[in-house]
Amino acid sequence: MTKEGVFFEDIKIGVVERFGHYAVLREEAIAFARQYDPQPFHLDDDAAAASHFGRLAVSGWHTGAMSMAMMVAHFDEMGHAGLGGAGLNDLRWIRPVYPGDTLSMETVAQAKRRSRSRPEMGIVEQHVTVRNQHGEAVMTYTAMGMVKVRQP
Amino acid sequence: MTKEGVFFEDIKIGVVERFGHYAVLREEAIAFARQYDPQPFHLDDDAAAASHFGRLAVSGWHTGAMSMAMMVAHFDEMGHAGLGGAGLNDLRWIRPVYPGDTLSMETVAQAKRRSRSRPEMGIVEQHVTVRNQHGEAVMTYTAMGMVKVRQP
Repeated sequence: MTKEGVFFEDIKIGVVERFGHYAVLREEAIAFARQYDPQPFHLDDDAAAASHFGRLAVSGWHTGAMSMAMMVAHFDEMGHAGLGGAGLNDLRWIRPVYPGDTLSMETVAQAKRRSRSRPEMGIVEQHVTVRNQHGEAVMTYTAMGMVKVRQP
Repeated sequence: MTKEGVFFEDIKIGVVERFGHYAVLREEAIAFARQYDPQPFHLDDDAAAASHFGRLAVSGWHTGAMSMAMMVAHFDEMGHAGLGGAGLNDLRWIRPVYPGDTLSMETVAQAKRRSRSRPEMGIVEQHVTVRNQHGEAVMTYTAMGMVKVRQP
């Protein structure tokens, strides 16, 4: 697909895509947690060791943000005309993410429909699995994204 | 409630709590978007003006992260023994959030249950509404949070 190439009409239901590579840095994880999720097990090694995480773990919202970074980079590569997100369903933080992990994405479009109120937009429901370097799922969710229609 | 005061047993179903105050700064919004959600309408005034957002809007993941910051500050004030999040249901980005907005929280515990696998934990399902300074809901979700049990 060339740049500016993917519109609502082009999205195929049921096709699995794998992409992305996000190296989770300790410094970035702690900076995110300090600003947005300053719970002890996200900030401090000793507190994390005493928690059910076992060692310093990344904020779940940070994992979500990193998944978005991989998604946007993929949109850019594909020339995807994304218009923003409407919402998320069934987000689960399945396993802890640790500094030193490398994350990647697996997505599959499950459904799509035209917007009733905005003829220039369609809504695509996409199931997302974020995996660590061992191939283990660390987070899953279904995203409802708004996508440009080629012929409104 | 005193510090270290709120455990699973203390959480009351159906009680609405209102708290938090997060001033959304333009610089912070752009820095977040640059790292995690670099779509044009989150970064550039002209691109945002041409989009359905009308003007530069905050990343939805950033709004989620800001809601977490208000939640953790509230936990700290209440002496809440939070153990991390299991997931989110039905997250909706209802209205755009703009730099200059001030966000606040409204939460209500909808259900709670003891964990089957971990006797020291309970799971609390809490409905969250994030509002702007006009009292408009900008984001809603249901969070499943793990909370320490006083008497496992």
